[in-house]
Amino acid sequence: MSLVHPDRLFSSDPKQRDCARELYQTVKDLPILSPHGHTDPEWFAGNQNFSNATELFILPDHYLLRMLYSQGLTMEQLGLRPNDGGEYENDPAKVWRIFAKNYHLFRATPTGFWLNHVFAEVFGFDEPLREDNAGYYFDKINKDLASEEFRPRSLFDRFGIEVISTTDAPVDSLEHHIHIIESDWNGRVIPCFRPDPVMDPEYEGFAKGIKKLGEITGEDTSSYKGYIKALEDRRRVFKKLGATSTDHGHPTAETHDISEKKAKKLFSKALKGKLDAAEAGVFRGHMLMEMARMSLEDGLVMQLHPGSFRNHNQRLFERFGRDKGADIPAQAEFVNNLKPLLDKYGNESSLTLILFTLDETTYSRELAPLAGHYPSLRIGPSWWFHDSPEGMRRYREQVTETAGLYNTVGFNDDTRAFLSIPARHDVARRMDCAMLAQWVCEHRLSLNDAHEAAKDLAYNLAKKAYKL
Amino acid sequence: MSLVHPDRLFSSDPKQRDCARELYQTVKDLPILSPHGHTDPEWFAGNQNFSNATELFILPDHYLLRMLYSQGLTMEQLGLRPNDGGEYENDPAKVWRIFAKNYHLFRATPTGFWLNHVFAEVFGFDEPLREDNAGYYFDKINKDLASEEFRPRSLFDRFGIEVISTTDAPVDSLEHHIHIIESDWNGRVIPCFRPDPVMDPEYEGFAKGIKKLGEITGEDTSSYKGYIKALEDRRRVFKKLGATSTDHGHPTAETHDISEKKAKKLFSKALKGKLDAAEAGVFRGHMLMEMARMSLEDGLVMQLHPGSFRNHNQRLFERFGRDKGADIPAQAEFVNNLKPLLDKYGNESSLTLILFTLDETTYSRELAPLAGHYPSLRIGPSWWFHDSPEGMRRYREQVTETAGLYNTVGFNDDTRAFLSIPARHDVARRMDCAMLAQWVCEHRLSLNDAHEAAKDLAYNLAKKAYKL
Amino acid sequence: MSLVHPDRLFSSDPKQRDCARELYQTVKDLPILSPHGHTDPEWFAGNQNFSNATELFILPDHYLLRMLYSQGLTMEQLGLRPNDGGEYENDPAKVWRIFAKNYHLFRATPTGFWLNHVFAEVFGFDEPLREDNAGYYFDKINKDLASEEFRPRSLFDRFGIEVISTTDAPVDSLEHHIHIIESDWNGRVIPCFRPDPVMDPEYEGFAKGIKKLGEITGEDTSSYKGYIKALEDRRRVFKKLGATSTDHGHPTAETHDISEKKAKKLFSKALKGKLDAAEAGVFRGHMLMEMARMSLEDGLVMQLHPGSFRNHNQRLFERFGRDKGADIPAQAEFVNNLKPLLDKYGNESSLTLILFTLDETTYSRELAPLAGHYPSLRIGPSWWFHDSPEGMRRYREQVTETAGLYNTVGFNDDTRAFLSIPARHDVARRMDCAMLAQWVCEHRLSLNDAHEAAKDLAYNLAKKAYKL
Repeated sequence: MSLVHPDRLFSSDPKQRDCARELYQTVKDLPILSPHGHTDPEWFAGNQNFSNATELFILPDHYLLRMLYSQGLTMEQLGLRPNDGGEYENDPAKVWRIFAKNYHLFRATPTGFWLNHVFAEVFGFDEPLREDNAGYYFDKINKDLASEEFRPRSLFDRFGIEVISTTDAPVDSLEHHIHIIESDWNGRVIPCFRPDPVMDPEYEGFAKGIKKLGEITGEDTSSYKGYIKALEDRRRVFKKLGATSTDHGHPTAETHDISEKKAKKLFSKALKGKLDAAEAGVFRGHMLMEMARMSLEDGLVMQLHPGSFRNHNQRLFERFGRDKGADIPAQAEFVNNLKPLLDKYGNESSLTLILFTLDETTYSRELAPLAGHYPSLRIGPSWWFHDSPEGMRRYREQVTETAGLYNTVGFNDDTRAFLSIPARHDVARRMDCAMLAQWVCEHRLSLNDAHEAAKDLAYNLAKKAYKL
Repeated sequence: MSLVHPDRLFSSDPKQRDCARELYQTVKDLPILSPHGHTDPEWFAGNQNFSNATELFILPDHYLLRMLYSQGLTMEQLGLRPNDGGEYENDPAKVWRIFAKNYHLFRATPTGFWLNHVFAEVFGFDEPLREDNAGYYFDKINKDLASEEFRPRSLFDRFGIEVISTTDAPVDSLEHHIHIIESDWNGRVIPCFRPDPVMDPEYEGFAKGIKKLGEITGEDTSSYKGYIKALEDRRRVFKKLGATSTDHGHPTAETHDISEKKAKKLFSKALKGKLDAAEAGVFRGHMLMEMARMSLEDGLVMQLHPGSFRNHNQRLFERFGRDKGADIPAQAEFVNNLKPLLDKYGNESSLTLILFTLDETTYSRELAPLAGHYPSLRIGPSWWFHDSPEGMRRYREQVTETAGLYNTVGFNDDTRAFLSIPARHDVARRMDCAMLAQWVCEHRLSLNDAHEAAKDLAYNLAKKAYKL
Repeated sequence: MSLVHPDRLFSSDPKQRDCARELYQTVKDLPILSPHGHTDPEWFAGNQNFSNATELFILPDHYLLRMLYSQGLTMEQLGLRPNDGGEYENDPAKVWRIFAKNYHLFRATPTGFWLNHVFAEVFGFDEPLREDNAGYYFDKINKDLASEEFRPRSLFDRFGIEVISTTDAPVDSLEHHIHIIESDWNGRVIPCFRPDPVMDPEYEGFAKGIKKLGEITGEDTSSYKGYIKALEDRRRVFKKLGATSTDHGHPTAETHDISEKKAKKLFSKALKGKLDAAEAGVFRGHMLMEMARMSLEDGLVMQLHPGSFRNHNQRLFERFGRDKGADIPAQAEFVNNLKPLLDKYGNESSLTLILFTLDETTYSRELAPLAGHYPSLRIGPSWWFHDSPEGMRRYREQVTETAGLYNTVGFNDDTRAFLSIPARHDVARRMDCAMLAQWVCEHRLSLNDAHEAAKDLAYNLAKKAYKL
């Protein structure tokens, strides 16, 4: 096998493979819609070259870090600087070599799949990364990265991205988005309103965030009313700069319908850092309700990503900070948790609330039945750890029969690993075509319907659900 | 693809397909046993023609309504009359056209699969329903429905139904069943004893139901003793009219072993509508125990369907009533909940308790281990949302290795959509044959064994488990 | 089909089958590592012939008993002697005939698969067991069992076992292990330290066990300090006799970080049998922490098997004792339960804690994310009911993409059914090769990588993880 095979991810059954090929040909070159991502808008504003292979591929990618760490490599060996002033490897070439030496750990994982795709399709390698060619890989990648064609805007255009959404805090100035709009470049990079830091009383620096929110909006955010007005104001600004959605990363899917009086009380207690865990949940759940109310007014699509235990590894978090691969899924529950919100807004077909889960047991038990009924609900693509061939297969198998194809919303790449974006969309398109091909060959779907569905899954559904 | 393909649902692998074909040939024409269904006995008693396509296919089918509703169509547009006197579409032809226009929503869903089967096999269509042939479909179906051969009894005979069970409240007079027995028609339509309305204190009109139960039996149901006697009495009547089973649709699988004194107290409080949620659970759980005791005496097979959050959409429930597609599954638990009942009756092999679940996580974790041990337990087929090709596959894959094939009970169609019954049994028979064929071709089962098993799954197991 | 087919468990797709064959050829004859088992060391110490087919196959195998019992056969009919002096079948030939008559119950189950393998490969049968050949089977097996080549040591050597671990209580004298070491036989039979009886206050005879622990070590185990020293002492003895691991069969994965003062208090209350359920959980969770501390010192690998409701069938337990097939899985939770232990020792790469589960929902949601991050964690193979073709497939599909192949530890046979050990390893090797072959044929893994991985899964990973 060379690094990537033209039939990868298709069934080895000749009939299914041929059908998948046929479907894939019609979607592989469709523009990429990336309505939920984490790239840095500064890349596209400043358009500076990326530095080197290690800083681009390893240091910011918690998928890589976690796997290497799990096998006994330390964060210091991997080039991460600890807060406590301890030593760490600061030669990127050496870190790259460690990575290459341990590349077998990524066998049969989506990370390995994406990396091979990037190595082959973006950098033109044709043999797998190994310890003995690590230096060659490192030098070639660095040389390419320094060239004109590998600047962020060139890659954006080369990748065929029609629109990409970043993820931004309400207090973000959005200066890079403004800069991009004002530039002569036509790339569409839009913000997404992610208010967790000022909506979740348990977020580090919550009160400070609220204060900053007051400063940026000119509202008195020490009062509940001013706080709500400030949020509405920032949503307007986000929307003006192209935003079509909000995003909410709560620990649970709790929603609560409480009185304004109670909300005020909780807010004032939250500012003082005095809410207990249950009260913090009520406040978050109330604020989701507020977000739904605002969405009905301004049309922003809501996304809810519940169920992650953030920074599970306390010691690592203290020494290296967030996003080092120690966010762990937890059990999720939607049927009762979403009831208050659904009682109030669930029947509004002008609201779109997209639900994500890390707990796959909710696919067939909760999400598909809910989204297969409520006009306001849609199911987001298989998320995070489940953004993988088997994860996608389970998702389609467990969701489709109850919710159909049309209560889903296409693919999200959800990544800060910019170079992997085409690889991720390619995996999704291939897996969807493979699934549709299976249904065609088992006479569960006509070929005509499969052709339409392939394009819907690759492009149309995301465009419609996210109002792009 | 024409509407239905002779090899539908079989693998596209030629070996597996040929084996599945061979097995399927031996079971496809076996009589249909439908031991758990919701058809209206009046159809078979009165034998009146069905009215029109919309009233037959759309209005009573919550599978269709929910999917259409989830995509923004209102219940009024779909022809449902709201309680509040509001307007609604009362031209069935227009509703049918809306349905046709949105038929793509049912791609790759069991509903779509069943509908195509009915359109092709019952009405002889050979092209898929589309907006532009909606009128042709509507007229042809209506014409057929008006004919002699499409009366309920003719269809029953044509479908090869050996026996069908309806589902009936204890206070039901069973007049239609009596009428059928007394008629010159030989169709076997039997009742099933479903006492939820008089066993679940949270059921609307519980106290009224108990009163009615007293009237129909002549027992004093204001006393606990009279209540129990009345239930025993009605079971006798049901059994005399052919019933072989009871059915229990509880929110959870809770069972409780409480004293008669406590039961009396709860009953009297229940009649006054004063039980809290926990007490209602205890009463229901106690009454399941009573049902098991009675079953040991009269031999009726018990069915328990826990884990549905009924009428989740409050607003819709208020305006359109029950069964509009807003029943949502919830997490289920059997190991602790059934313990009291199993401690008391679990080792009785003359008791049969058939367990159903909407929470597929319980297949391999709880149901298969329990049914693979207790002689009184059997696992019902994949239920409701999981009555689907992928649902059936998951069921067999997750249940068989621990419980074997012989602690399952064949197929239930569980439907009020009479015309879809042969389609549903056909899907089950095809999926079972496909699964067996895979095992044969992977040398996990001999062809001889597969032939026996195919007949057991299609016919013998249901016959035995339900004592038909 | 003869009893076993050379391509069994491989895909029927010719490409995948050929690739699986190729991989399997390279691993099928690798030595067997059995790091977690329940064979009786006395077999290998005394090397006495096994008695007869019924006593070898049926009476000790709870997989067989449970399935036969679930279909209405009584334990007495199956030859088990009740405690109450009641009658039972004591003719092993008659019990064997009952088993043969009901052999269809094991169709498509792993038990059936293993039995056919043993019948074919160990005893040379070529037709399936049926009622009409039951006598022939019984006589032939008994004749073989009486021969020199069927003594335990001969079978051990013939099976190609490199090392087998038994499971032993801390108070066990380990006399058989000593006997084996001192004998002229080279078979490696090592103990595993399983302290549940003296670590779980809810274990029958807990206080008595602690007393015995004091006697065997000479420590004063009425004091907490002496108790801890006694455990450390026994671990030393186990290690000297070859042990490389400990094993912990707790109801949950709870761990607790409590003060020594609190531990002493709980211990003293435990000795008096006065802990409530929650306190017993805290004590067990604290002792797991102590085990981790000791493992960091002595290097023994920890195994944790949570989530079984032991002896669920109370009546059966009272009349026939433990291990009669009525242990039922329960929901499991690791993310919060393991947090205290992971906070303290999770980052130590010199600790190895191998996690097992009966709740498959934790594979992708909890175990793979945890083991894909913490250097101390590994995921044990699919366990117990899931030690089966479909169970193994689900395990690989749900674990690999997030944890990779290298945070797993190869296969455990986990059985007291000695003769089935090669069959069980063969199933695991076949399923792994089938899975790898699928990935190769879908271009998700190179053939080179698959060859390396096949050997790692069959041999190297267990060797390394268990320090064999």
